[in-house]
Amino acid sequence: MTPEELTRRVREGVPLAGALGIEVLRAGQDTALLRLPPSTLSLRPGGTASGPSLMTLADVGIWVPLLVATGGADETRTAQLQISFLRPAGDAGVLAEVRIVRQGRMSLYAEVWMRGEGQEKPCAHATSTWLRAAGPR
Amino acid sequence: MTPEELTRRVREGVPLAGALGIEVLRAGQDTALLRLPPSTLSLRPGGTASGPSLMTLADVGIWVPLLVATGGADETRTAQLQISFLRPAGDAGVLAEVRIVRQGRMSLYAEVWMRGEGQEKPCAHATSTWLRAAGPR
Amino acid sequence: MTPEELTRRVREGVPLAGALGIEVLRAGQDTALLRLPPSTLSLRPGGTASGPSLMTLADVGIWVPLLVATGGADETRTAQLQISFLRPAGDAGVLAEVRIVRQGRMSLYAEVWMRGEGQEKPCAHATSTWLRAAGPR
Amino acid sequence: MTPEELTRRVREGVPLAGALGIEVLRAGQDTALLRLPPSTLSLRPGGTASGPSLMTLADVGIWVPLLVATGGADETRTAQLQISFLRPAGDAGVLAEVRIVRQGRMSLYAEVWMRGEGQEKPCAHATSTWLRAAGPR
Repeated sequence: MTPEELTRRVREGVPLAGALGIEVLRAGQDTALLRLPPSTLSLRPGGTASGPSLMTLADVGIWVPLLVATGGADETRTAQLQISFLRPAGDAGVLAEVRIVRQGRMSLYAEVWMRGEGQEKPCAHATSTWLRAAGPR
Repeated sequence: MTPEELTRRVREGVPLAGALGIEVLRAGQDTALLRLPPSTLSLRPGGTASGPSLMTLADVGIWVPLLVATGGADETRTAQLQISFLRPAGDAGVLAEVRIVRQGRMSLYAEVWMRGEGQEKPCAHATSTWLRAAGPR
Repeated sequence: MTPEELTRRVREGVPLAGALGIEVLRAGQDTALLRLPPSTLSLRPGGTASGPSLMTLADVGIWVPLLVATGGADETRTAQLQISFLRPAGDAGVLAEVRIVRQGRMSLYAEVWMRGEGQEKPCAHATSTWLRAAGPR
Repeated sequence: MTPEELTRRVREGVPLAGALGIEVLRAGQDTALLRLPPSTLSLRPGGTASGPSLMTLADVGIWVPLLVATGGADETRTAQLQISFLRPAGDAGVLAEVRIVRQGRMSLYAEVWMRGEGQEKPCAHATSTWLRAAGPR
């Protein structure tokens, strides 16, 4: 699947991702790079990406490599996600680098580092456990 | 502050909460009850509230008692949030019961139980640490 | 299984729990009550139960109802555990109230509230996801 | 402080770390490398490092760079720790690579990757938020 196809798939599957304009820039079976553009929906007054928009970016981002690996048929579900907010993301876009750390038969574990565009240091870090097949969520 | 005022404040502070139509039903200094209505933005195809919409509900929900305690002036920020998805939320609304477990000088800790309307068992559980003053996020 | 049998089983399965003298006081298929006694191994200088001893108490505690449900044959494994430290546990014993929140086919989710003996307010809160069968750890 | 001094300091501060024989191999202000040796205390029957011994390793490990930065006077406390177990650690020693991701005025955030000796892939990943000064735990 191309980044464009993945962007479309992700926005269909999670309408919030579409409303936020989240875009897949690059994707493989173990990694992905996504971008959250700045918008009136993502930014808080004062101009920094809100926590919930970063959580959406992280959760959707982890889904992308799983879609790549299955040609879009993925049935894995988030079991647990934890996110730590490290510094303001700023009012530019936010980039999310996703890495699938472990692919198991029943579950997988991934991490996402997020950075405000033009910033060197991360604004947030998420880790997440997903379960295969008819799991929770 | 009345539930109506809190609903307005929360939607201004986190535009995603406004787009999702999240509503404050009841609030005190240590607890709150919020509702996420079903909508094309919150539901995934197949009709169940998406993970990111539940994360938004949890994060915004914890903010409500802090706004009550400060008359809307709260400056506390999410440091860390973790959410576990337990079962599908369904396609009705989702209720979130917020409880501030510990209020410290520097930080606070809260939990949120979420339930699909008409369901007895929780669909998700979030716990979160917030930092006072000019902290992260 | 009696509390005595469970205490023995838990100490055999996790030698650290034995060294700490962790004891099962009460147990069912969905709940358990355990006690960590004060000792030179559990207390930090100054006299408060250390973080690692509370983590051991929480992890071992969640195992107890699973042992009850299977007559000691349990094969479930911790996938993820998160703990928040809320206030000093003090230098008395620490009680842990375990509750299995959700039992699924593949996974389960539990929480543990810990309190220093004689204290009303919790000193720590843990939540944890476990996977059935030949899972991680 | 030398690794030997840090090992001593850590074992005094957290007696469980001493009982487990946890050793500091290398340490700076932002990173550290520790080792948990195999022992009858750390291993579960069947021979793999127990979850609680890995949690102890992670928690103590994050403390080390903070001790380096303050010459052993550190007053920071764990607020929250989450650990994901990825695969069995095996019955050799376990190495923990600690990295302080963010040092803030009030709080800090760190991660720890743990690997069974001789294994390429991690057996566990921990992330943790600590609070400065008279905080929780």
